[in-house]
Amino acid sequence: MERRSFNRRMLMGGAAVATSMSLAPEAAAVPKRVKAAPAGGKERHMKLFAEQIGRDQMGYGIGNGRATIPGPLIEINEGDTLYIEFENRLDVSTGLHVHGVDYTIGNDATRLTRSLVEPGHTRTYVWRTHAPGRRADGTWQEGSAGYWHYHDHAIGSDHGTGGVSKGLYGGVVVRRQGDVLPGKTHTLVFNGTTINNGKGHTGPDIEATVGERIEFVVITHGNDFHTFHLHGHRWADNRTGLLAGPDDPSQLIDTRVVGPGVSFGFQVIAGETSGAGAWMYHCHVQRHSDSGMAGLFLVRNSDGAIPRYDDTAHRRH
Amino acid sequence: MERRSFNRRMLMGGAAVATSMSLAPEAAAVPKRVKAAPAGGKERHMKLFAEQIGRDQMGYGIGNGRATIPGPLIEINEGDTLYIEFENRLDVSTGLHVHGVDYTIGNDATRLTRSLVEPGHTRTYVWRTHAPGRRADGTWQEGSAGYWHYHDHAIGSDHGTGGVSKGLYGGVVVRRQGDVLPGKTHTLVFNGTTINNGKGHTGPDIEATVGERIEFVVITHGNDFHTFHLHGHRWADNRTGLLAGPDDPSQLIDTRVVGPGVSFGFQVIAGETSGAGAWMYHCHVQRHSDSGMAGLFLVRNSDGAIPRYDDTAHRRH
Amino acid sequence: MERRSFNRRMLMGGAAVATSMSLAPEAAAVPKRVKAAPAGGKERHMKLFAEQIGRDQMGYGIGNGRATIPGPLIEINEGDTLYIEFENRLDVSTGLHVHGVDYTIGNDATRLTRSLVEPGHTRTYVWRTHAPGRRADGTWQEGSAGYWHYHDHAIGSDHGTGGVSKGLYGGVVVRRQGDVLPGKTHTLVFNGTTINNGKGHTGPDIEATVGERIEFVVITHGNDFHTFHLHGHRWADNRTGLLAGPDDPSQLIDTRVVGPGVSFGFQVIAGETSGAGAWMYHCHVQRHSDSGMAGLFLVRNSDGAIPRYDDTAHRRH
Repeated sequence: MERRSFNRRMLMGGAAVATSMSLAPEAAAVPKRVKAAPAGGKERHMKLFAEQIGRDQMGYGIGNGRATIPGPLIEINEGDTLYIEFENRLDVSTGLHVHGVDYTIGNDATRLTRSLVEPGHTRTYVWRTHAPGRRADGTWQEGSAGYWHYHDHAIGSDHGTGGVSKGLYGGVVVRRQGDVLPGKTHTLVFNGTTINNGKGHTGPDIEATVGERIEFVVITHGNDFHTFHLHGHRWADNRTGLLAGPDDPSQLIDTRVVGPGVSFGFQVIAGETSGAGAWMYHCHVQRHSDSGMAGLFLVRNSDGAIPRYDDTAHRRH
Repeated sequence: MERRSFNRRMLMGGAAVATSMSLAPEAAAVPKRVKAAPAGGKERHMKLFAEQIGRDQMGYGIGNGRATIPGPLIEINEGDTLYIEFENRLDVSTGLHVHGVDYTIGNDATRLTRSLVEPGHTRTYVWRTHAPGRRADGTWQEGSAGYWHYHDHAIGSDHGTGGVSKGLYGGVVVRRQGDVLPGKTHTLVFNGTTINNGKGHTGPDIEATVGERIEFVVITHGNDFHTFHLHGHRWADNRTGLLAGPDDPSQLIDTRVVGPGVSFGFQVIAGETSGAGAWMYHCHVQRHSDSGMAGLFLVRNSDGAIPRYDDTAHRRH
Repeated sequence: MERRSFNRRMLMGGAAVATSMSLAPEAAAVPKRVKAAPAGGKERHMKLFAEQIGRDQMGYGIGNGRATIPGPLIEINEGDTLYIEFENRLDVSTGLHVHGVDYTIGNDATRLTRSLVEPGHTRTYVWRTHAPGRRADGTWQEGSAGYWHYHDHAIGSDHGTGGVSKGLYGGVVVRRQGDVLPGKTHTLVFNGTTINNGKGHTGPDIEATVGERIEFVVITHGNDFHTFHLHGHRWADNRTGLLAGPDDPSQLIDTRVVGPGVSFGFQVIAGETSGAGAWMYHCHVQRHSDSGMAGLFLVRNSDGAIPRYDDTAHRRH
């Protein structure tokens, strides 16, 4: 069920970026600095396609693989330019509409701006990014860093209602130089009352070991509003989800209101204050959680055990 | 369709505040500072009225003009006091209920507090504002600066459900000394599933030239929740929508959850990273965008051209 | 109707924390510092129970008292550990599921993790908290301070839909050393389209005198989204609701989107910029306010008077 996770090493033409793994507290005898995002400025190239999945779903795929829902997670650094050679293997026009990054109107991937790709055709979309800085007029320009996303904006309606509903969406992370790199990143998309278009509305289980730095990218699509809640962990309601420093006034939260088109992300140290366990994540709207909009953050001890968890009988939580 | 836009020069008794126009990047040979909001502390006076618009709508108007939907944008500086001589030209009681600024209970403009205006009558509402500062007890008092709004709180129900539904609402901007002044400000109100009570639910097109500093004031009314999305541009999720400096931890966003009574605002440099184009703004709730809750941010090159835009055939986007 | 308000002096084993009362502006001849939260690190012990209230409701109660809706407000300081001896006086299994604080999986209070309490039984839940600090890897760990809450996660469904609906919820405040202490704290829970499960959907009236520092803890439960609005007062959209300093970029707001499972809080100086009055608070969704989701913040002058308020005829506002 966990078919996203586009490894950052797969970005063609980009330097390999080492994944980092935070030490579990008990193992931190020698203080070790986290890995941080490097400066951007590279030209990166990748191939992406859209295709049918079974009878009722559609997805984005990469390389020689199959399409997945969500599509591959795309990870770049502020200053990078990404060239995406996009192939439409569907029998309707589609494209790659992206949030947050810099793109010209010819890369808007909408019918209005005549920037779609017809069935069987290929074109290159260009996404640029930039670091924050001062403008000539003295004001500060924001940088591109953020938890963003891409999706179809053409199928079923000019706003992509059909394409998004069937699974044509994926996450984008743009990192700022110095941003803390996670061990693993997981994309969760609240789409209608499903998570990642999963069966029975249920979300994927996310596996981790106590002390591992895990990143969540949370995206919402469809018509409904939700509240994303994670048990036993929390994050800052700001750009990174991490405290920027001791004076950061951001609210610490473990539940957040989300709605269609909204994306955010955060990192947690698995079990940092709570230890191992089968920690639920779910939409906190009662009707939605009761219908199955939930999954497990399975945090194991170093011996692999998950206290109080019977994995033969855990569905439906 | 763009009938809001209460020019700040029209504030009677207030000093004229020059509008600022940011230079397009290509023209910025000589670095030029932006215009900034001056210190407040002035007494300002204006006349406002409420009247019927056609058979089914109502609006607020100013001076000798006609009522508009949204009503005139009211712009003041922290420290200013605004005296609004308000005339009720409707055949039901109404008033000016405002968010964010300082007002006594006699200026609440609700039935409960007996602060409405009967049909055919006139009264003066007083809105005060203040800069941030330290209290005698050592704590910080917030200032009044923000993107606020005013609306009827009496027609149809004691919460103004009928008056707001018909168009009795408008924006308020309170600026802090030093806040960056935009070239132009546009008010967009998601009211039910309309934008500014527009026909076919469609919103106004907003015109700009690449490099112009454009301000959006976004207000929501009614019963529905929405997600406001703008293509090709983004802003900081903080007081001004602008980065306060390099350490501002605010999330950069291009889509925001909004609901009835909520207001926020931001400025963008038109096409700064994206260039000219017909950039959509829309509610990202698929059912709402499909029903027409969308408009265009028409950003022209200096020669007036909008690439990939055929303005004879652009509806419905 | 105001049956919450678990006095912090009632925390067994904890040092008594004096309540603070801000001076009204006119009385502030001698500048006086506010009372601030002390350092945490204490072990605290309390007894809490769940019981039926009448035929249709359920609540949490403390000591020898009766259960209330919301349950007792629980207030601790970062670094404290709270041991809650919890007795289930209901005829179904329930527990204390909490947001924000640190707890092991055995304190999750869910069926999945086998951490509920059967009818007639007693067990101790342990909640830990921590101050912010630097990790060995150099990153900042957030602290536990926040406006959190607890609720049933077992009755009616595995997500507690039935228990929460009937009233099994309450507020938690974790304070950071130096946080400003309020004079009084009030918990308001938007549950479905009721406030605190109140009759006719109506919320409690909150009494204060001009100049008093009043704290609101606002929690949402059920299936609906709301916008919490308070007349004549406003707050910062950050951790405390107070300005952290002159450079805090947080938006000042008087209306906030909330949804199930979300909690936040803020303090106001009653009538600081607005004076005495019957200030409404209400959900700004028109259908909800029209159905009664409103209450009054009754701010009195020092002589007890409330201008423009006829308390014999104020319902339904």
